[in-house]
Amino acid sequence: MSVSEVLISEVGPRDGLQNCKSIMPTDLKKQWISELSRAGIKEIEVGSFVSPKLLPQMADTGEITRHSKTIDGLEVAVLVPNLKGAQLAIESGADKITLPLSVSETHSIRNIRRTHDQVIEEAEAISELIKSLPENDRPHFEGSLSTAFGCTLEGAIDERVILSCAERLMGAGCDEVGVSDTTGYGDPVSIKKLIKAVQGVIGEKNLTGVHLHNTRGLGLANALAAYDIGIKTFDSSLGGLGGCPTAPGASGNIVTEDLVFMFESMGVDTGIDMDALMKTRELLSQGLPDEPLYGFTPLAGLPLGFKS
Amino acid sequence: MSVSEVLISEVGPRDGLQNCKSIMPTDLKKQWISELSRAGIKEIEVGSFVSPKLLPQMADTGEITRHSKTIDGLEVAVLVPNLKGAQLAIESGADKITLPLSVSETHSIRNIRRTHDQVIEEAEAISELIKSLPENDRPHFEGSLSTAFGCTLEGAIDERVILSCAERLMGAGCDEVGVSDTTGYGDPVSIKKLIKAVQGVIGEKNLTGVHLHNTRGLGLANALAAYDIGIKTFDSSLGGLGGCPTAPGASGNIVTEDLVFMFESMGVDTGIDMDALMKTRELLSQGLPDEPLYGFTPLAGLPLGFKS
Repeated sequence: MSVSEVLISEVGPRDGLQNCKSIMPTDLKKQWISELSRAGIKEIEVGSFVSPKLLPQMADTGEITRHSKTIDGLEVAVLVPNLKGAQLAIESGADKITLPLSVSETHSIRNIRRTHDQVIEEAEAISELIKSLPENDRPHFEGSLSTAFGCTLEGAIDERVILSCAERLMGAGCDEVGVSDTTGYGDPVSIKKLIKAVQGVIGEKNLTGVHLHNTRGLGLANALAAYDIGIKTFDSSLGGLGGCPTAPGASGNIVTEDLVFMFESMGVDTGIDMDALMKTRELLSQGLPDEPLYGFTPLAGLPLGFKS
Repeated sequence: MSVSEVLISEVGPRDGLQNCKSIMPTDLKKQWISELSRAGIKEIEVGSFVSPKLLPQMADTGEITRHSKTIDGLEVAVLVPNLKGAQLAIESGADKITLPLSVSETHSIRNIRRTHDQVIEEAEAISELIKSLPENDRPHFEGSLSTAFGCTLEGAIDERVILSCAERLMGAGCDEVGVSDTTGYGDPVSIKKLIKAVQGVIGEKNLTGVHLHNTRGLGLANALAAYDIGIKTFDSSLGGLGGCPTAPGASGNIVTEDLVFMFESMGVDTGIDMDALMKTRELLSQGLPDEPLYGFTPLAGLPLGFKS
């Protein structure tokens, strides 16, 4: 019974793999992405166009993006830190480009050595580049407010700063803005409050997706809270891949299997086949034998009589 | 900031320990319960009055109950399967007695060899026993609808059967009825639906508590859903103790640390000190060195600037 529809955006090949010590072979990455799509995943963040010196796990993002573009009906998303990354993303044919902006300026400077002003300049340059393309070739451009629910260096970030960042990203030419609980500091109340506040400034239709983490176990509760106020796009990663770099044993991203199970149990159609989805874990175990995989539903199995 | 209040009922000493292979020494159990109380836990299910042959982990429940009664301000709850257990519970001075009734009659027969009619007869006998006591000595008597969200043997249980069980427990003299997601089959939609349906039959004030499991990772999301419709009492166990007997690696009960963290983050007062609560995990590691402990918040630590 389909009550509503949500989009599960799989970020394992990007956010998951970039936090793994081992590097997944390119062929297995391609196979994994293809299998995820066959299981019904409609959007995948397939990689990040960053310096291969910084993140060797992402060195094949160009090739992975081109492969992913051959998969029928798949929205191919990539992360870019700057204009150069966006140029490579466009050359590879990405459908969606996400530029993160850490609302904690301390984190932004430490992480990518850029102030807010400098990130906004990159956003403007990327937007100009996109506008220079023929209309049909233009990727969707999202600005993502990272550390939106608090930063491990600064703690809570002043909401006025966050709202200003959201406005500036839209002003710089982003098509939409997402909020990211990078640190797993969010809770159901703060998630609702901030989403509504940002929507109040940039418009409801310009914030429709969230990137939540499960660092303190609240991932699904937070996703439920966001769903309750109309959010339709949820990032998650298969097997919670990559874990939480600062908390060994804790998962980082929300586990796709558990998130899909929650929605499907609720009667909310995800379009994803649970059995096929869980089967794709085998590729992860094969390609990354030393990485722990998270998720409760795969361990417990589906309830008797469950149908997705 | 206290928006509301919830009661976290710690069931680790009962539901947790009875699913552990190893047996926690009585002295450490006592110390653990005392420390939980000092951390701000106001209700603890300290044991189960069952045959020590069936559950040797619970053989000291009488002694544990008497110790717990010496702790100032602690509501001492116990589980009983029948009249005999209730007699022992009353002799030990328990404040609250819970009798489980599995709404899956197949499960009831397999698990405790009793039909619904037979469990209701026990409830009536327990209720008579309680009424025979001086008013001030009468423990609170709860009937608990287990496998309420589905059974591993029968799958989903007809809601009419569940509502009838609830009515019959109240008719037999229970002071209240709780619902238990014994199997971790519940989801935010089914949790709300069933609670409202049962309340519709027995009255809102007679169903105020839920016992949820985290078998498929939905524990906190389900607790949030129950909280959203006014439920105020939540069972959980420290470290998710005992795990899920049918799913190695998955936790059974909701992890108290994560549940308290969720509510406190939301500004919902639990009266519990997070740091003191997390410190009580050390006793578990000491008393049960071979048991895995669950929970994300203890691994990740509290957010920068967090105050409970």
